[in-house]
Amino acid sequence: MRLSRSFGKTLRQAPSDAETASHQYLVRAGFVQQVAAGIYSYLPLGWRSLTKISNIIRQEMDRAGAQEISMPVVQPRELWEQSGRADTFQPPLATLVDRRDRKMVIAPTHEETTTFMAAANLESYRDLPFNLYQIQTKFRDEARPRAGLLRVREFEMKDAYSFDRDEAGLDVSFKAMAAAYHRIFSRAGIDVRMVEADSGPIGGKDSNEFVLLAESGEDTIFVCSDENCGYAANAEKAEFKKPVADAEEQGELAEFHTPGIKTIEALAGFLEVPVSKTVKAVFYAPETSSGGEIIFVSIRGDLEVNETKLRNAMGGAQPRLATREEVEAAGLVAGSASAIGLDAVGGPRSRASITSIVDDSVVNSPNLVAGANRADYHLKNGNYGRDFTADIVVDIAMARAGDPCPGNCDGHLVEHRGVEVGHIFKLGTGYSEAMGATFIDEDGTEKYPIMGCYGIGIGRLLAATVEANHDERGMVLPRAIAPYEVYLAGLNTNDDTVVAAAEKFYDELTAAGVEVLFDDREEPPGVKFNDADLIGLPLRVVVSARGLRNGEIEMKRRDADEATMAPLSEGVNAVKAALEG
Amino acid sequence: MRLSRSFGKTLRQAPSDAETASHQYLVRAGFVQQVAAGIYSYLPLGWRSLTKISNIIRQEMDRAGAQEISMPVVQPRELWEQSGRADTFQPPLATLVDRRDRKMVIAPTHEETTTFMAAANLESYRDLPFNLYQIQTKFRDEARPRAGLLRVREFEMKDAYSFDRDEAGLDVSFKAMAAAYHRIFSRAGIDVRMVEADSGPIGGKDSNEFVLLAESGEDTIFVCSDENCGYAANAEKAEFKKPVADAEEQGELAEFHTPGIKTIEALAGFLEVPVSKTVKAVFYAPETSSGGEIIFVSIRGDLEVNETKLRNAMGGAQPRLATREEVEAAGLVAGSASAIGLDAVGGPRSRASITSIVDDSVVNSPNLVAGANRADYHLKNGNYGRDFTADIVVDIAMARAGDPCPGNCDGHLVEHRGVEVGHIFKLGTGYSEAMGATFIDEDGTEKYPIMGCYGIGIGRLLAATVEANHDERGMVLPRAIAPYEVYLAGLNTNDDTVVAAAEKFYDELTAAGVEVLFDDREEPPGVKFNDADLIGLPLRVVVSARGLRNGEIEMKRRDADEATMAPLSEGVNAVKAALEG
Repeated sequence: MRLSRSFGKTLRQAPSDAETASHQYLVRAGFVQQVAAGIYSYLPLGWRSLTKISNIIRQEMDRAGAQEISMPVVQPRELWEQSGRADTFQPPLATLVDRRDRKMVIAPTHEETTTFMAAANLESYRDLPFNLYQIQTKFRDEARPRAGLLRVREFEMKDAYSFDRDEAGLDVSFKAMAAAYHRIFSRAGIDVRMVEADSGPIGGKDSNEFVLLAESGEDTIFVCSDENCGYAANAEKAEFKKPVADAEEQGELAEFHTPGIKTIEALAGFLEVPVSKTVKAVFYAPETSSGGEIIFVSIRGDLEVNETKLRNAMGGAQPRLATREEVEAAGLVAGSASAIGLDAVGGPRSRASITSIVDDSVVNSPNLVAGANRADYHLKNGNYGRDFTADIVVDIAMARAGDPCPGNCDGHLVEHRGVEVGHIFKLGTGYSEAMGATFIDEDGTEKYPIMGCYGIGIGRLLAATVEANHDERGMVLPRAIAPYEVYLAGLNTNDDTVVAAAEKFYDELTAAGVEVLFDDREEPPGVKFNDADLIGLPLRVVVSARGLRNGEIEMKRRDADEATMAPLSEGVNAVKAALEG
Repeated sequence: MRLSRSFGKTLRQAPSDAETASHQYLVRAGFVQQVAAGIYSYLPLGWRSLTKISNIIRQEMDRAGAQEISMPVVQPRELWEQSGRADTFQPPLATLVDRRDRKMVIAPTHEETTTFMAAANLESYRDLPFNLYQIQTKFRDEARPRAGLLRVREFEMKDAYSFDRDEAGLDVSFKAMAAAYHRIFSRAGIDVRMVEADSGPIGGKDSNEFVLLAESGEDTIFVCSDENCGYAANAEKAEFKKPVADAEEQGELAEFHTPGIKTIEALAGFLEVPVSKTVKAVFYAPETSSGGEIIFVSIRGDLEVNETKLRNAMGGAQPRLATREEVEAAGLVAGSASAIGLDAVGGPRSRASITSIVDDSVVNSPNLVAGANRADYHLKNGNYGRDFTADIVVDIAMARAGDPCPGNCDGHLVEHRGVEVGHIFKLGTGYSEAMGATFIDEDGTEKYPIMGCYGIGIGRLLAATVEANHDERGMVLPRAIAPYEVYLAGLNTNDDTVVAAAEKFYDELTAAGVEVLFDDREEPPGVKFNDADLIGLPLRVVVSARGLRNGEIEMKRRDADEATMAPLSEGVNAVKAALEG
């Protein structure tokens, strides 16, 4: 392709709201154009990259036995009422009323539609397993789209849905998809880690995220320092071995005066004990609550609450911090509250509206300092079991770098930053049951197929790749997903010999199957070099008057510091070798 | 692909509302599933066909120099306000309000978005010409979706948009697209005629439709009987040489009594003159009119009104037949109205609200019988010019089979039925001007690029192909767009020798690059033969116990009546030859 004919212009300036590298460079290089907040058009260079990513995904999905289908963007809201997600999906479904006065939604994902399709075509256990996928447009009306292609509203997604006869079958399907994902990311030339993840609003049992490591990523993952262990999880999901306190004899519960002390740090300092010897109280309410309900969380003073774990402990209801008014209305004394004596707080009506959740760290720690549920007073020697119990005891603590790995190893958690580019879920039978998809098993009984679902954001993958692969001059694209392999620049465009040599070499490379973006514009070398770096194709090749005097071309890999010279007569082979190198 | 593993079931019964062959067979063969009125999912077989069509289109668009991009489904309504189509597009835009309280539309076409993109990336005449295309999802909220994939609401479309420096450039771009379309349809194996067409709501100057000939098609086209002429147009657009009446001396205008005569046929019979000696009046109103405006159409009694031509005569306003109340309110006497003496009808206020449009056939016909604008009276010897004139004189007549071709030939129009599968338009500068897309020409002046647009409905192409290629048993798909090339049926599935031979032959064909759908199910031969005919792959190959006794396989082309036998040892070559044949 001649750059002079390739539609799109490189820009010197990024949009003022472009904060991430991928947003800046994808716009500046003419890969994408914003049409509205979180809604983009892809220009030829960007779409070529997306097509390459899609083709890799398609090949690997086919190889894994999945079958390609296509489901609609616009669909009846009834489908979502059937699954129970019409009012609960986050972000809220984009809804319109059609000319027939039916409520339609723009689909953010396709569990409902696939299950509807399966219900019509599934009869017998012999039909199972199957895995259906599509590469298709989705819309999620995010409240705050940002960061270019990383957090958009409309996007291309590969989504796959597996249907199995039993749990063992789901395990096989799930592993096959995990393996396919590893191959996809490997072929795309990007460094992706599979980590345990929380299922979130898609629901289901197990889920794994695929995270592209990048310092600028907004996600935090923890990986075990012991390579043989292999434990990896994102921050929302990560577990760790809770530090076990030294065994000691239980002391006597005693109240003492702590004037003006409101924080755990102040309390520990006042008593000259480590914060791990304290228990702190954090107050939440269900996000949808309009008041009256309090989630009273107790966790050791040295740990922080993981709100995703807390949500799961609450049965999936999203928590929010309670307001000062809610806390006071429940009769709780902020700064001196604890689960010890909670039954007496504010009388019986109040206790019934409080759910007490205790992190398991508290259970195994003796003689803790806790609030006395009286302003300016705390208690010594609080012991779970003896002095207080809870409605729920569960792990709700946030893992941190350095925490002991939860695996059967001596490793500790190492923190990385990254961008989620894929997510796979074990769904179970929730959708099958809701949409009435059944099959007759070999024994003649009617059963629900067990589902899994598997997503990759195509544009997000491109953006994440740029986050992980760029420098201060532009993108550094892996060969497999760069729009072209070679940026061929003919310099000295006023010199007919150079022009002719560049044209001839362009034809030779193209004939040899190399994908070339040929900068044939009448621009000075500086402009061409800047654009080459910005667009970030794997190899830059320069045909210039100076090089031609020695019968040579100049080659520079985008990921290398130094250029090398090669004889023009051996140019095609030299380019191929440099691309491989 | 093994049929036992291919997702989707063939059905014995078509949906009760499936009236067309393509609707019946595409649903019965498991190619598509309806999700809502005019909204379908594609199952694996259907999507494979669509992918093949898309790939042919993509290759030919690339070959013609067009560049692939992708534009969003959901977009700001503001873009459509800028072009002036927000309130006028038909069917009305599907609109929603997003979480940021902005009005968004689901795009039915992408002239606005492409021009917005061009405006940001077009600077100089050196950037021109370019042609941008995408294969992408569109939504048009048709009031009456029907006929399966022929009239849907959501659909996949290839849409291309060319930008040129001048009219001569547009001609080149337009011809290149016409040529690409011919290649696309030829490669898809379907018989498509390019015809002149009306531009409709997309606007612009010239347009051509590509019509797949099919008896069941809902479109009518006229083609000149003289092959050297080549004139072809759809019914909305078709012109014809108007029959010229014999010259005769103008007689004296005279009123006469026609008691109870209300129709042209009755009038001609009463007077014993041919209907071509009469002029009839037809009353329309602009579709959006709430009363008061009348379009008074005069056309010779032997011709019918073409409402598309009438719409163009009315400057693009869609006409509808006037109601009896509207006609009476204008002071017109239905059954005896004519343009002769129209100025006197109902007084001056009424005349101002009437637009008189006369078909040019009336102008060239002497001594016509016309209404007298008085109940039960008509006039003899009405002559245009002498006795009446009109606000507009133009061709608004509907062509019919047998009418003389409008070309420079002695041919006549031959009528065909068909299905529109593509449409190309010369748009001009309407969108460039509205969206502010300009370039600096070589002489330094700022100009608007001249646009063309070019569409193919992908699913519609598949459905139209089935309309043109089916019999009472199922589809007869062309090789290039069939999901697979060969339907391989292994019979006698209880005979291990046959099963082994069928499996081996499946592997051999697949290894030889033949795309095989292998019916490995334990079903009786009748079921397999029925499904083979229904799905309509080009070649059915049968491995059976009887054939194997002679070392033979049976081959039957779907478009042939007879099967042939071939030695199994030569099977792969025989299959390839039969596919070519």
